[in-house]
Amino acid sequence: MLLELFDCDAEALTSLDLVKSAMIEAAKRAQATIVDVVFHEFNPFGISGVVVIAESHLAVHTWPEHGYAAVDVFSCGDTLQPQAAVEYLVEQFGAGRTSVIELQRGVFPRAAGPALARAVSVRG
Amino acid sequence: MLLELFDCDAEALTSLDLVKSAMIEAAKRAQATIVDVVFHEFNPFGISGVVVIAESHLAVHTWPEHGYAAVDVFSCGDTLQPQAAVEYLVEQFGAGRTSVIELQRGVFPRAAGPALARAVSVRG
Repeated sequence: MLLELFDCDAEALTSLDLVKSAMIEAAKRAQATIVDVVFHEFNPFGISGVVVIAESHLAVHTWPEHGYAAVDVFSCGDTLQPQAAVEYLVEQFGAGRTSVIELQRGVFPRAAGPALARAVSVRG
Repeated sequence: MLLELFDCDAEALTSLDLVKSAMIEAAKRAQATIVDVVFHEFNPFGISGVVVIAESHLAVHTWPEHGYAAVDVFSCGDTLQPQAAVEYLVEQFGAGRTSVIELQRGVFPRAAGPALARAVSVRG
C-alpha cells in the first residue's frame, strides 16, 4: 500500500521521536512482527525511516516543509492488517488529504503496469 | 520505481551476501548516498533488506522458492539514476522476466490512483 499524506502537521513530521514511534506503533497495529528499525533525521529537516518486519517492511519519508509524508506498507501473507497501520498514521500525522494505492506484487502483468494498481481510497 | 523480477536465479536470491552487496552496488550505480543498510535472512529462506539513502531508500524482498524478487527504488530529487540500479539488479539476480512500474509520489491525484502509475517497461 502506497500512502500519500498531505496537509500534515509540520511539527509532527519534523519530530524524529514522533515519526519513529508512530511507525513502530503502526506496524504493531498491523499485527506485524518487527525485525529491525532504522530512522534518520536530515538537515535542515525531514525524516526517513524503515521498520523491517517479518512480513516485509514499512517505510516513511517526510517533507515537513511541504506538510507531506510518503509511507509504504509492503506486506506478504494474509495475516497483516495494513489498513490499521494506514488509519493510525493518517491520525498521528494529522493528514488533511490522503491517498492510498494498493499494488499487488509478484503477479506478472498481462496488461501494462497500471492494471496492477487499484486505488482503495482517495480522500480530501 | 517498483521492480518485479521473475524467473531469477534461486541461488542468488538465497545468498544474503549476494543480495546485500548487489543492493549496495545498485545504490551506488544510481549515484545515491548510502546512509544505512539493514538486511535479514529468513527461515527457511528469503531475504529482506533496505538501503537507506540520503535520497530515500531501496528495498528488496526475495522468495527464492518462487524465483521472485520485489525491489523498490524510492528516490527524490533529480540527481539519482534509478534506471542504473534497476539494470544492475536484473543482471545480478538473473531475472528472466521483469516489470518496472514508475510511480510519482507527492502529487495529489485528481483522478483515481491508477492515473499515477506508468509502466516504463514490461519484458519477458
